[in-house]
Amino acid sequence: ARRSHAQRLREVVEEAVLAEKVGLDVYGVGEHHRADYACSAPAVVLAAVAARTERIRLTSAVTVLSSDDPVRVFQDFATLDGLSNGRAEVMVGRGSFIESFPLFGQSLDDYEGLFADKLELLLKIRASETVTWRGGEHRPPIDGRGVYPRPVQDPLPVWVGSGGNPESVARAGKLGLPLALAIIGGRPADFAPLVQLYKATGRQAGHSEESLRVAVHSHGFVAETDDQAARVFFPSMQRAMNIIGRERRWAPYDRRAFDAARSRHGALFVGSPSTVADKVQRLMTTLGVDRFLLHCPVGTMEAQEVLSSISLFGEKVAPTVKEAFQRPLSPRQS
Amino acid sequence: ARRSHAQRLREVVEEAVLAEKVGLDVYGVGEHHRADYACSAPAVVLAAVAARTERIRLTSAVTVLSSDDPVRVFQDFATLDGLSNGRAEVMVGRGSFIESFPLFGQSLDDYEGLFADKLELLLKIRASETVTWRGGEHRPPIDGRGVYPRPVQDPLPVWVGSGGNPESVARAGKLGLPLALAIIGGRPADFAPLVQLYKATGRQAGHSEESLRVAVHSHGFVAETDDQAARVFFPSMQRAMNIIGRERRWAPYDRRAFDAARSRHGALFVGSPSTVADKVQRLMTTLGVDRFLLHCPVGTMEAQEVLSSISLFGEKVAPTVKEAFQRPLSPRQS
Repeated sequence: ARRSHAQRLREVVEEAVLAEKVGLDVYGVGEHHRADYACSAPAVVLAAVAARTERIRLTSAVTVLSSDDPVRVFQDFATLDGLSNGRAEVMVGRGSFIESFPLFGQSLDDYEGLFADKLELLLKIRASETVTWRGGEHRPPIDGRGVYPRPVQDPLPVWVGSGGNPESVARAGKLGLPLALAIIGGRPADFAPLVQLYKATGRQAGHSEESLRVAVHSHGFVAETDDQAARVFFPSMQRAMNIIGRERRWAPYDRRAFDAARSRHGALFVGSPSTVADKVQRLMTTLGVDRFLLHCPVGTMEAQEVLSSISLFGEKVAPTVKEAFQRPLSPRQS
Repeated sequence: ARRSHAQRLREVVEEAVLAEKVGLDVYGVGEHHRADYACSAPAVVLAAVAARTERIRLTSAVTVLSSDDPVRVFQDFATLDGLSNGRAEVMVGRGSFIESFPLFGQSLDDYEGLFADKLELLLKIRASETVTWRGGEHRPPIDGRGVYPRPVQDPLPVWVGSGGNPESVARAGKLGLPLALAIIGGRPADFAPLVQLYKATGRQAGHSEESLRVAVHSHGFVAETDDQAARVFFPSMQRAMNIIGRERRWAPYDRRAFDAARSRHGALFVGSPSTVADKVQRLMTTLGVDRFLLHCPVGTMEAQEVLSSISLFGEKVAPTVKEAFQRPLSPRQS
């Protein structure tokens, strides 16, 4: 039976509360505009999490900036930053799902320009309390107006979320914004040139190493054993992938594709704590990554299974990975 | 010393948590786009409250619908409704403060049309999961798209907030929407014809008595004695009124105006619990009002003073008023 949106929203809050309890550093909530997703308003959901946590950082993953208003996005996350006393982040993207474009009257023909313009405005609002903006076809002008509330963190962290498009990665580097790469297919190692492109573009534009951070976001699930993890995760992942696959004309998702993805070189982080820790550590070393976000659940899973995966990820996977990176991380050390 | 926006946002959450603890029924948060206000995103603030409360209803007071997108407003409050398990309300208004219009690129020349169009769309979204909207100059069209998440309450409560403009009151009645009257000046008794207009218009349009509810929202402050309440509240109220007064070319706000407003026939609910209870009861009887919202603080007050006022309002004023209205309320019984 499908859960109600309300039930799922309350489960998400419980997941985040547990994520803090088991020592994880950051929790993210995505934005979707589809019947099979409960969250179209990440900042609202994260504010509920903020009220019940003390330490964990809170991010969107991602905010579809192209079809939103940068002033509202800034206000929502500055409010979250105040409520959480400086724990908010925004991850902005152009959107993998595109339902929000027609819903908010945006044209997909402007996919690129919409994002570039709105990101520029968002960064202007972040940089100064009083905003002047020339406007254009994507957003009316702003003539020296204040935008409130102001956040605790100055600047409010803005990450660029990208599926691996070179232009998008280079733009993040050029702007000196941290990059969150979604690696949900293919071979993670193949993303190394993109990370190099990002860092090279960033350095060339004069940004510090400190500002050129890279996060990876991948699908996965942790259980006591590899077999158990695969058995629990596969049906849910398959259901979700086939819903999307029908829309995008992908081949049906089968167990063989799943097993390949969860093997040593694939993009799924599914397995026992030691299998997943080993794979995350290898990914971070190979790509030169500073942060890893495990996206779980995908599809419709039992609430208890998700909570159990979060516990194992926080209590067994994360400490192992962190211990391995006590030394400063370099992309060339592997 | 002015508090930071962040500190004020966290105080608001504590106020709401206390409001539930002392037995109040509803807590509201306004939307402003000015340096002297911390909240531009009511649903985000209310979500933090939702996570720490169980029973109290949560409303905006008001959401400036004219300069927002009805789809986002619905999504934000449907999300809040899910997180709070059915305790969300939206109070929509055209805006008393008008900073949001130029900020979001709306023209004040469209003050009336913007609100009418956007309210129509909001009610369409509320009525059905799949939305078709003709569009127009104020909002692009929507061609049979779903809007998610769906709320727990069906329909999600939408109140119309009004300062007392007859057209706005009549529109609320015609649409069968509950009316929240802001009475912050003049003589509350003089609002009786507006309530009659609302109810007459509503009945004429075929709406039930049940759907034609009226709330009043007024400024006020409760302390142990009338003198103490006046002494604490006046300087903060004066400061706030003079900031706004300078912009709107009002006469300076003095103690004499304050004392007149807090006397028997004025619009301020400032005093001891028995003074305020008596005045609220009289207002509800005279106007035929089902809900009273006390707006406190106005301006910059000590956090402890506000919390103390909420305690007295919840523990002493509200029980007295509720006891007096055990019988069904009629506007003619006074």
